[in-house]
Amino acid sequence: MSSIFGENLKLSIFGQSHGPAIGMVLSGIPAGLVVDEAALQLFMDRRAPGNAPWASTRKEPDRVKFLSGIVNGLTCGAPICAVIKNQDVRSADYENIMDRPRPGHADYTAQIKYGGLQDNAGGGHFSGRLTAPMCIAGGLCLQWLSKLGIRIGAHIFRVGDVYDDGFDPMAPELSSVKEDFSVLSATAGAKMQALISSVQARGDSVGGQIECAVSGLPAGLGDPMFGGVENRISQIVFGIPAVKAISFGDTKDYGSENNDAFTVENGTVTTCTNHCGGILGGITNGMPVVFRVNVKPTPSISLPQQTVRLSTMETVALEIKGRHDPCIVPRAVPAVEAAAAIAVYDMLLGQGGNHGA
Amino acid sequence: MSSIFGENLKLSIFGQSHGPAIGMVLSGIPAGLVVDEAALQLFMDRRAPGNAPWASTRKEPDRVKFLSGIVNGLTCGAPICAVIKNQDVRSADYENIMDRPRPGHADYTAQIKYGGLQDNAGGGHFSGRLTAPMCIAGGLCLQWLSKLGIRIGAHIFRVGDVYDDGFDPMAPELSSVKEDFSVLSATAGAKMQALISSVQARGDSVGGQIECAVSGLPAGLGDPMFGGVENRISQIVFGIPAVKAISFGDTKDYGSENNDAFTVENGTVTTCTNHCGGILGGITNGMPVVFRVNVKPTPSISLPQQTVRLSTMETVALEIKGRHDPCIVPRAVPAVEAAAAIAVYDMLLGQGGNHGA
Amino acid sequence: MSSIFGENLKLSIFGQSHGPAIGMVLSGIPAGLVVDEAALQLFMDRRAPGNAPWASTRKEPDRVKFLSGIVNGLTCGAPICAVIKNQDVRSADYENIMDRPRPGHADYTAQIKYGGLQDNAGGGHFSGRLTAPMCIAGGLCLQWLSKLGIRIGAHIFRVGDVYDDGFDPMAPELSSVKEDFSVLSATAGAKMQALISSVQARGDSVGGQIECAVSGLPAGLGDPMFGGVENRISQIVFGIPAVKAISFGDTKDYGSENNDAFTVENGTVTTCTNHCGGILGGITNGMPVVFRVNVKPTPSISLPQQTVRLSTMETVALEIKGRHDPCIVPRAVPAVEAAAAIAVYDMLLGQGGNHGA
Amino acid sequence: MSSIFGENLKLSIFGQSHGPAIGMVLSGIPAGLVVDEAALQLFMDRRAPGNAPWASTRKEPDRVKFLSGIVNGLTCGAPICAVIKNQDVRSADYENIMDRPRPGHADYTAQIKYGGLQDNAGGGHFSGRLTAPMCIAGGLCLQWLSKLGIRIGAHIFRVGDVYDDGFDPMAPELSSVKEDFSVLSATAGAKMQALISSVQARGDSVGGQIECAVSGLPAGLGDPMFGGVENRISQIVFGIPAVKAISFGDTKDYGSENNDAFTVENGTVTTCTNHCGGILGGITNGMPVVFRVNVKPTPSISLPQQTVRLSTMETVALEIKGRHDPCIVPRAVPAVEAAAAIAVYDMLLGQGGNHGA
Repeated sequence: MSSIFGENLKLSIFGQSHGPAIGMVLSGIPAGLVVDEAALQLFMDRRAPGNAPWASTRKEPDRVKFLSGIVNGLTCGAPICAVIKNQDVRSADYENIMDRPRPGHADYTAQIKYGGLQDNAGGGHFSGRLTAPMCIAGGLCLQWLSKLGIRIGAHIFRVGDVYDDGFDPMAPELSSVKEDFSVLSATAGAKMQALISSVQARGDSVGGQIECAVSGLPAGLGDPMFGGVENRISQIVFGIPAVKAISFGDTKDYGSENNDAFTVENGTVTTCTNHCGGILGGITNGMPVVFRVNVKPTPSISLPQQTVRLSTMETVALEIKGRHDPCIVPRAVPAVEAAAAIAVYDMLLGQGGNHGA
Repeated sequence: MSSIFGENLKLSIFGQSHGPAIGMVLSGIPAGLVVDEAALQLFMDRRAPGNAPWASTRKEPDRVKFLSGIVNGLTCGAPICAVIKNQDVRSADYENIMDRPRPGHADYTAQIKYGGLQDNAGGGHFSGRLTAPMCIAGGLCLQWLSKLGIRIGAHIFRVGDVYDDGFDPMAPELSSVKEDFSVLSATAGAKMQALISSVQARGDSVGGQIECAVSGLPAGLGDPMFGGVENRISQIVFGIPAVKAISFGDTKDYGSENNDAFTVENGTVTTCTNHCGGILGGITNGMPVVFRVNVKPTPSISLPQQTVRLSTMETVALEIKGRHDPCIVPRAVPAVEAAAAIAVYDMLLGQGGNHGA
Repeated sequence: MSSIFGENLKLSIFGQSHGPAIGMVLSGIPAGLVVDEAALQLFMDRRAPGNAPWASTRKEPDRVKFLSGIVNGLTCGAPICAVIKNQDVRSADYENIMDRPRPGHADYTAQIKYGGLQDNAGGGHFSGRLTAPMCIAGGLCLQWLSKLGIRIGAHIFRVGDVYDDGFDPMAPELSSVKEDFSVLSATAGAKMQALISSVQARGDSVGGQIECAVSGLPAGLGDPMFGGVENRISQIVFGIPAVKAISFGDTKDYGSENNDAFTVENGTVTTCTNHCGGILGGITNGMPVVFRVNVKPTPSISLPQQTVRLSTMETVALEIKGRHDPCIVPRAVPAVEAAAAIAVYDMLLGQGGNHGA
Repeated sequence: MSSIFGENLKLSIFGQSHGPAIGMVLSGIPAGLVVDEAALQLFMDRRAPGNAPWASTRKEPDRVKFLSGIVNGLTCGAPICAVIKNQDVRSADYENIMDRPRPGHADYTAQIKYGGLQDNAGGGHFSGRLTAPMCIAGGLCLQWLSKLGIRIGAHIFRVGDVYDDGFDPMAPELSSVKEDFSVLSATAGAKMQALISSVQARGDSVGGQIECAVSGLPAGLGDPMFGGVENRISQIVFGIPAVKAISFGDTKDYGSENNDAFTVENGTVTTCTNHCGGILGGITNGMPVVFRVNVKPTPSISLPQQTVRLSTMETVALEIKGRHDPCIVPRAVPAVEAAAAIAVYDMLLGQGGNHGA
């Protein structure tokens, strides 16, 4: 079901980019979990626009308001609803989109699916803005997972052809700097930002990759076939607009180099390498779960493009105005962390117990 | 839920590699769809082992027997159950696995998850053999989709470092030779087979990639966020053991080159390129849906490996006997086609109508 | 999943009786459906408290505010979120409930389930107030069903031992007076109200039954086994607090009198009687779907009762203060209509098409 | 979804009355649960036809064969598939049904839904015979629940106007005689059997009620709103053909008599009466869960009835031949126990843990 995710918890996301509000309902959460609203807001700020040269200039403070499910700072077992008001709305920027769909956007496919009755202002329900409610749910799950010793971090693995590829998949965790521009190597980060600036200057956009690691997971999480860790993480991660690929671990060509030999460390079975990304047969083996996602370049560019005027079925030139990110990768980092957290917490709930309470 | 897939149809897969039988129940299928059992068996034969040098020597004719849901060669609206007897079972080959888990296999994670009570013979429910019931369901869906003008083909895109990368994503369909070793270029195919032979000779295994194209889809299929085409295809494709990555389309680094310009062809909106793999905002745009999956090298190799004897917690050497594929990629091709067919047919059913009847 | 309903649409209800707001998210609704907010508010008013002698004196105007999913009075295909602010909150009335659970209420079972961390003010998420968001969803579905010629009406069938049993299940529809106190016979209604008054005067409460009819349904709706019309309607109707029983049709003891003979009317197959309540094998036969639900007497009564002080495990006397309905049956009528509408619209969506748009 | 039930376990039922086999797949079951096949067969025998004067003379030994999920008498964590061959098939008895639908049967509604392509022999997928696979799943759950101290029993509460109403809902369990004709009072049982004989003699059929009690449940099971115990039990119970009503507990008209006062017994909170049937707010309170279902009279009667010849749209007389139960109530008793067991075990799995292993 389109805007609902989860087996044990249920996340229902609503809202359109330029509607009155966006938000989420998160059901199936145990009672007694601590909600740190200030920490959540800091997490939301990493995703919020308007804070950095690589981000849209749309000003949205993204203040989270809880309507239900929390009493005195603790979850009460009832569904959690949280909303964010849309504030800096300039729908006039989008007036002509319906007749002249933007290449690379969902304008045309939504037009066909909804017969022209979709809310197309700012991308409507397809907007990247909808990752904000995902970050509310994910930010909460991150807090609860942290209490269980499970940490999730992501960093920009690549922008264009600039790599930040120094993460060791055997490391106990991805010590990502939880900043607006999450990289392991400051040098790589500087190069990436320079690339983004030059791309922006010429009216283009650039894509890249994000690497995410989940550490502290127990072995034995996940189910065979369609309920595996890969299946569940990929199902939610492709809910982030612009994600077009996902890979788990670092698969090698030959069995002799790809198989992770088992060994014993501190009385526990572990592996000597982690090419499998912490997952065998869909089930965690106790090593960090590591995956990478590809984020396509923002389709909204100011360079002239060709599209079709649907009313006349003529090809026409299009120059996109509005406020757009020259590179969405930095702001997608917390969204990827959020998606992973939701998928992992959902799986943990399936194991029973009052996790994190 | 682990062994169940689908929103509008429900596919429930059962069986263990060396149990009495494997099979599937497919519910939610309209009445009146033609079932061509002979054509289905030909499709099953492409996946069956024992037919080629690159495949396991286990002899399994994989004869499909329907127990319900079909009357006089037509679906009757009731759930379809089909079973395949396991015949060539040598469970003795697996006697010591429980104590000495094979690297790269689900042996260890299943041991932890099920407390040693799993059926580990031949990999049990985690075996690649479970792609056979997936092929029953997918083979049926392929027949029904074909009646609707929707064709699905896949080919071996890569084995080790040998590529068969000549597919044009703008092509009306992937004219895969529906053979045991599906490639577009016979030359590439010969090189791949030579590579597999040499890998097999040294007791190793090799992985690769499969490319799949779905053509003839209407624009407007799929849902936003978690119900997109990427989400649904990835959810089922990761149900094929050994799949570790999936990518949709052929994403370019810069927006100016990645955006597929819209144009008009034969009075219809289409795109000049197909970098998006036929999907925008999770919804089909009418172009072929194209995706690639990475298949890891078969973990079962006869080269010596290191594992842990769980009963003593000592590291020990392991040499795997038994009958294993030096390269699982060729036999995974029909499984990928099947998975795509099931996901697509499931989405079409959500549009309503008596599809294919 | 507790607060989520539906297969083709998904209704997610949130809120607690004395929290900031209650509301719902309704996903999976086609684009282009007209939303008449004024008509919806009239429907909500039938359920709202504070309007009649038999209702709680809590003053809640229950103004519905839409946050998403509707553009220019039409659904846009995105999830619909609507909220109602809680206004007349007196949580102090409930301060001692946690230690002294009210007989007949969910206080004790929630205490056990949530370990004392539930929001117990006003019944929290278990309150009958949560039927308001159900009425938002149901009120919308009623509007859309009406466009398809499907009408749903309910009336008070019984209060205590006073019956309003004049409905003919063969009638084209239940022409319920859509009023605050829905009865077919004004005489019966007057007697019921007199009974309620006398019950209220002595500090007691009284229960009853509601009869609901859905007319204009096509034959062939519903699925076998667990997806039948009875299964789906009962699943949602038991989501109305206080409902303890449901019956479909008017089953007779002997086959010869219970079987509804088939006949032909206006060129259509119909039945001579409607003991089956319009459902055979879980599937509609084109006759009105008729069912009755039993509503228990409001557990909150001012007469003294015995409960247990949990902190000391002593039995103690309890006198409940607060504002309670002496008979919840009249206000449950629109909730039953809403529940039926949601279940029916969900089933229709499963048939495909853009229903009501 | 029509033939699938469950949230934590998934039960998928397949088969048609006169097809090759009927069966079920039960997924999501923990590893290590004991399966006593002999005890299961005894449970199946209570439902099987051909054993008693009140049952159909169709001879079906209903031997259960497991195809997967069980190794050495223990569940192994993989989906459990079990099949029963259909043996005593006389499809010729049903040749004319499609054109002349039987009153009270699903013949007509299936005809409309499936366009005449359904398997109508013996009622196809709508046959009461499909309660056999439900009894396989339920019989297993009963065994596992028994290990947890949870016992489920049902008895014939009423046949026609003969009652067996001596069950005390405060009793620790319903000590039903697990026999073919389950009653508490032998006198009532004799009267019921006499009534059935006389009804059968005149070519008619008779319906009744079944009462079921689940004892030993922990308090706190179930979820608010749509996930309550009533919602879940009713959803599966209406999957038994012929069930038309369900009621939980024994609701009284006035709050003062219906509220179950809390008290303390052996250091535990309990109630003085059990009018609520062990459920408050959808959640168990630790008292026995008690419910009654109404079973309509078998629609197949040999008395002449009126139907419509669909090919000519004329009303015609119909005399039903074949082998039918004059009263289905006795054979529905184990099906009701099975349904309750599946629903309860599903809810327990949602609490986490390896229940019963």
